[in-house]
Amino acid sequence: MAEARGRLMGEMLIRFLDTLGEQINSLKRELDPSQVEELIKAIEGANKIFVMGAGRSGFVAKAFAMRLMHLGYNVYVVGETVTPRIGRDDVLISISGSGETTSVVNISRKAKELIGSKLVAITQNKDSTLARMSDVVVLLRAKDKTQKDENLSSIAPLGTMFELTALIFLDGLVAELMSLKSLTERDLEQRHAVLE
Amino acid sequence: MAEARGRLMGEMLIRFLDTLGEQINSLKRELDPSQVEELIKAIEGANKIFVMGAGRSGFVAKAFAMRLMHLGYNVYVVGETVTPRIGRDDVLISISGSGETTSVVNISRKAKELIGSKLVAITQNKDSTLARMSDVVVLLRAKDKTQKDENLSSIAPLGTMFELTALIFLDGLVAELMSLKSLTERDLEQRHAVLE
Amino acid sequence: MAEARGRLMGEMLIRFLDTLGEQINSLKRELDPSQVEELIKAIEGANKIFVMGAGRSGFVAKAFAMRLMHLGYNVYVVGETVTPRIGRDDVLISISGSGETTSVVNISRKAKELIGSKLVAITQNKDSTLARMSDVVVLLRAKDKTQKDENLSSIAPLGTMFELTALIFLDGLVAELMSLKSLTERDLEQRHAVLE
Amino acid sequence: MAEARGRLMGEMLIRFLDTLGEQINSLKRELDPSQVEELIKAIEGANKIFVMGAGRSGFVAKAFAMRLMHLGYNVYVVGETVTPRIGRDDVLISISGSGETTSVVNISRKAKELIGSKLVAITQNKDSTLARMSDVVVLLRAKDKTQKDENLSSIAPLGTMFELTALIFLDGLVAELMSLKSLTERDLEQRHAVLE
Repeated sequence: MAEARGRLMGEMLIRFLDTLGEQINSLKRELDPSQVEELIKAIEGANKIFVMGAGRSGFVAKAFAMRLMHLGYNVYVVGETVTPRIGRDDVLISISGSGETTSVVNISRKAKELIGSKLVAITQNKDSTLARMSDVVVLLRAKDKTQKDENLSSIAPLGTMFELTALIFLDGLVAELMSLKSLTERDLEQRHAVLE
Repeated sequence: MAEARGRLMGEMLIRFLDTLGEQINSLKRELDPSQVEELIKAIEGANKIFVMGAGRSGFVAKAFAMRLMHLGYNVYVVGETVTPRIGRDDVLISISGSGETTSVVNISRKAKELIGSKLVAITQNKDSTLARMSDVVVLLRAKDKTQKDENLSSIAPLGTMFELTALIFLDGLVAELMSLKSLTERDLEQRHAVLE
Repeated sequence: MAEARGRLMGEMLIRFLDTLGEQINSLKRELDPSQVEELIKAIEGANKIFVMGAGRSGFVAKAFAMRLMHLGYNVYVVGETVTPRIGRDDVLISISGSGETTSVVNISRKAKELIGSKLVAITQNKDSTLARMSDVVVLLRAKDKTQKDENLSSIAPLGTMFELTALIFLDGLVAELMSLKSLTERDLEQRHAVLE
Repeated sequence: MAEARGRLMGEMLIRFLDTLGEQINSLKRELDPSQVEELIKAIEGANKIFVMGAGRSGFVAKAFAMRLMHLGYNVYVVGETVTPRIGRDDVLISISGSGETTSVVNISRKAKELIGSKLVAITQNKDSTLARMSDVVVLLRAKDKTQKDENLSSIAPLGTMFELTALIFLDGLVAELMSLKSLTERDLEQRHAVLE
């Protein structure tokens, strides 16, 4: 693409794609298999699964929840209309790059301390309030929106790299879960909404 | 990651990450610079920008809209609370892999034919109803949820590859727009919501 | 309230409350019991219940769906994250004052004609596209947003009177359903979300 | 309606409508004009208006925000896609019957203490955490979901009466604001979304 056009347009897009390619390679190397295993156990062992996130991490949480529904899990998004009461046998999966988002931290604490639900953090900050109170932490190394990084700030601003990494990781996890449960694309399609 | 564990867990995740890496390389090669240029012109030339999509493509549309707001554009999501009337000087960016989603096609037709707004399609199907009626089409080659592909169906089921490609492309476009408008991460941060 | 203050403030609010009081009396007189009965049968007989509406009618649909969940029904909102495929044994309850809203009409037609689901219209327009294709129509007499009424336009503009009437009717229906199913407030509370 | 049918169906619906009629009369008598005046001043004096609420109170907040947009205000819903950073010259209107909802209390505190925004509480609990930290409190007497009331619990369970009272009050306030700003239904219609 770069050759066919002038300097201004396309160059940053190409640099962004290259950076993301490297990030995917890092993810492959650095992801801790034991954390993935614990996350799968939490999902498989739960009665109901709840997900939450704020801002763009919230859209990642919803995109993952939709696939969990397609896979046949009993899953809900915190704050949506038909989301019921969470219980002790349920798991809350909270997505926050910084691990300090006001609503995510407060709601997660309520689930963990008041209800006694299992709490999973998907974050890039292992020392965060969210990570420290969670039963399972999946650490995704990626600049989050509170970190400064001169190389990244002009091509993947704010939490972009964390949000993309989280969505990519979770879509990879969907592939794992499909295999684990011996489901085919056809099985998922049978549950996919048609009123849209 | 693969070496440290048995067959069952991790293998599909690794295959997914490899497939996505290849998809990013394809995107770099196959993206048409003139389509990107037209999309940027449509965004820059619009009075107000509206985005829409259904299902996971809807979350991609929202993630993009949030960044357009951070960049200072006057942007709205079709169906959200404070979204005003669209006008002739506005653009609607519709995201649909198949280009045949009921609500997206009908709402896009209304914007185009009844209101006279500019219509941009982000799709993988250049022969779709959506693409055929659009002023600008950005074609993203990727399996969408109506296509069958034996290699992909078990690692990136339904529209996964289109949805990820769309989000990745649009986040790359944000890098382009930042450069074009000489904005820094700090400028975006100043507009980022804090009540979350 | 009126005596304690000048002309400008409070007068329109009082006139609005008086108008709504009269509307509730009209609703009591004019609601057709056989339509209510058919709606209850449709809800009770459905495998899954789907609701939809656009704009403020969409918020009414969601408020009703939340109570149906509290009552123990298997209920979903069209367009939300965890909403599955609708089937032949399911019902779609569509709320539209005019009965002509683009997305509501097109999605309802798809449910009715393509899937074969039962369709219920809650509308004030019995001659509308939505009403004409529905299996059950609950007619709520109230100005909708496409109608002009000089007396109402300055105190209950656009679809206000229809939207309030729909919410009030549906909350009354919740009382009916509680009684029918012998449920207490405590039963509803047990299902009410706590993560909020 | 009641005469035409047996005991089971319709009776609870009629009782609900009668109870709501009485509630509207109470609202007329008990609403404090000075609180309404302060709310109008807060809305008129704000640079940007933010609204929030959880559950059904969240739908009330959104229905009000949509009308404020139709009236020409610069309004946003906390948590929606295009909602920008709140500032010192902005107002946050928080709706919570109990005044103790986790997310509403924590987000409101952040707006008030960290940002210095003006905070308005719409609640039925004047001693609540939310009311105590707010600059303006509009007190709406109505059973909220944490209160027990034997007469009400079987016809207007949980927060039903507060939520309806809040929506009705705010729609009455819209009539006040239309008059105050000399706007007609036609002015509102010009801003009403057509892509729906």
